[in-house]
Amino acid sequence: MSRPVASGNLLLDVPARLADEQFTDLISAPGVRITRIVSTGHATDWQQAEEDEWVLVLQGSGTLRFAPDDRQLVLVQGDWCHIPAGVRHRVEETDARQPTVWLVLHFGGGA
Amino acid sequence: MSRPVASGNLLLDVPARLADEQFTDLISAPGVRITRIVSTGHATDWQQAEEDEWVLVLQGSGTLRFAPDDRQLVLVQGDWCHIPAGVRHRVEETDARQPTVWLVLHFGGGA
Repeated sequence: MSRPVASGNLLLDVPARLADEQFTDLISAPGVRITRIVSTGHATDWQQAEEDEWVLVLQGSGTLRFAPDDRQLVLVQGDWCHIPAGVRHRVEETDARQPTVWLVLHFGGGA
Repeated sequence: MSRPVASGNLLLDVPARLADEQFTDLISAPGVRITRIVSTGHATDWQQAEEDEWVLVLQGSGTLRFAPDDRQLVLVQGDWCHIPAGVRHRVEETDARQPTVWLVLHFGGGA
């Protein structure tokens, strides 16, 4: 008996305004986690993960900041970024005019 | 020394017409592979993988067909589908009017 096929849409049920960023896990399997994140103008603290992170912007926009070189990266629709484990980074800002929808994939660690 | 941050855009450099589907690997790591596929009206043969497959349509549309129950699933922008290892399926058709851009994640096998 095979496991069932699952499906959904990342651009549906996107809240217009959130107190905190919204995290929805789509897949959680050994070594891999797929999550949708919705930000409405949010920023994050500095973070550094033990897993690799691959992010994609589906709607809206977000600005990433990396340490120690202070590099900035603005992501718009279709833009992806691979953040290897151990790279210190933060989301500096997200679109203030519309919700930003991220697809985030964690892999390669204890994900 | 940490590995470098990499980035790109899935919606840039999308060919308008292709003889064969175009496969571009973005990440290839132990247990995880992230690939962009561009289809311009293509269909595929029946396939059955030893890895799980997670697909997302970023642009265009595609119709998946599953065996043995003959279930059909039409995917448009933002739609995702998790196809567990061993589930027999094919791409029955893709958008004839515009290129279809897929993000495909293989995981959980010998990816």
